[in-house]
Amino acid sequence: MIFTEERETRAANLLEVFAARGLMIATAESCTGGLIAGLLTEIAGSSRVVERGFVSYSNAAKNELLGVPTETIEAHGAVSETVVRAMAEGALAQSRAHVAIAVSGVAGPGGGTVAKPVGLVHLACARQRGATVHLERRYGDRGRGEIRLMTIDDALGLLEAAIAEA
Amino acid sequence: MIFTEERETRAANLLEVFAARGLMIATAESCTGGLIAGLLTEIAGSSRVVERGFVSYSNAAKNELLGVPTETIEAHGAVSETVVRAMAEGALAQSRAHVAIAVSGVAGPGGGTVAKPVGLVHLACARQRGATVHLERRYGDRGRGEIRLMTIDDALGLLEAAIAEA
Repeated sequence: MIFTEERETRAANLLEVFAARGLMIATAESCTGGLIAGLLTEIAGSSRVVERGFVSYSNAAKNELLGVPTETIEAHGAVSETVVRAMAEGALAQSRAHVAIAVSGVAGPGGGTVAKPVGLVHLACARQRGATVHLERRYGDRGRGEIRLMTIDDALGLLEAAIAEA
Repeated sequence: MIFTEERETRAANLLEVFAARGLMIATAESCTGGLIAGLLTEIAGSSRVVERGFVSYSNAAKNELLGVPTETIEAHGAVSETVVRAMAEGALAQSRAHVAIAVSGVAGPGGGTVAKPVGLVHLACARQRGATVHLERRYGDRGRGEIRLMTIDDALGLLEAAIAEA
């Protein structure tokens, strides 16, 4: 087991509800670097729900894979509400999924500033129908691994909320 | 720590050599579902090396993201040498990376056949210069999580070999 049992159970429950509704998920990950998709696909039968994922780690990838305008990244920074919303909506447009989750944050240990400290993470969840939901988190400088795990948990929360409203 | 210390140390060493050579990596993951990119990005400073990743979980994603022809997937199956080579070369073409690693396998517990049992995994590593290297593994039916971890380790091995030859 790569993730904790609690986390995998939560992912399994989420996938079950999505599968029952016939809904698929796409991921667009920056700071988590593939771990959200990695957790979801740890569950047997996940291919019914996980359609595809983007690890848009570089700014070029955010632009070329997800269609986030370079000017938007330059104006707001890669870790911003505007960019993460565009990532989620881009992932929806560039996939066959019904729901897309996107995350971008400062996982550290380097790269933090006063305005955007280590632990700042933006998340967004886009749905084919309905508004894109945004979440800003400031986890604090509690280590790269822990910041990424907390981001995964908040991403699961957004997906759970999306299915409740879908 | 999400992965074991041994695995993270191995990834850190790999990234250090890639960074020293100014070489970047792209990933194209099916059965590992983002975990190879997830491991590499667990290392601080990985943005110097990890350019982008594709979680091409569905066949549509393999075709649309990586340019693997639908006919190739139908003729050989998604878990095949031909498809995984095309995934690696597609990831190289659809990124700014110098080296691309691709994996596709039967992680189970379902989906196995006599010809393609649970535990069969194909891996390929494509480089901007030089031939694409292919590896076929039959790990046996030792559980989904373990099969995915063994795949990650063999992917690291291919990347280590690629840098040795680059």
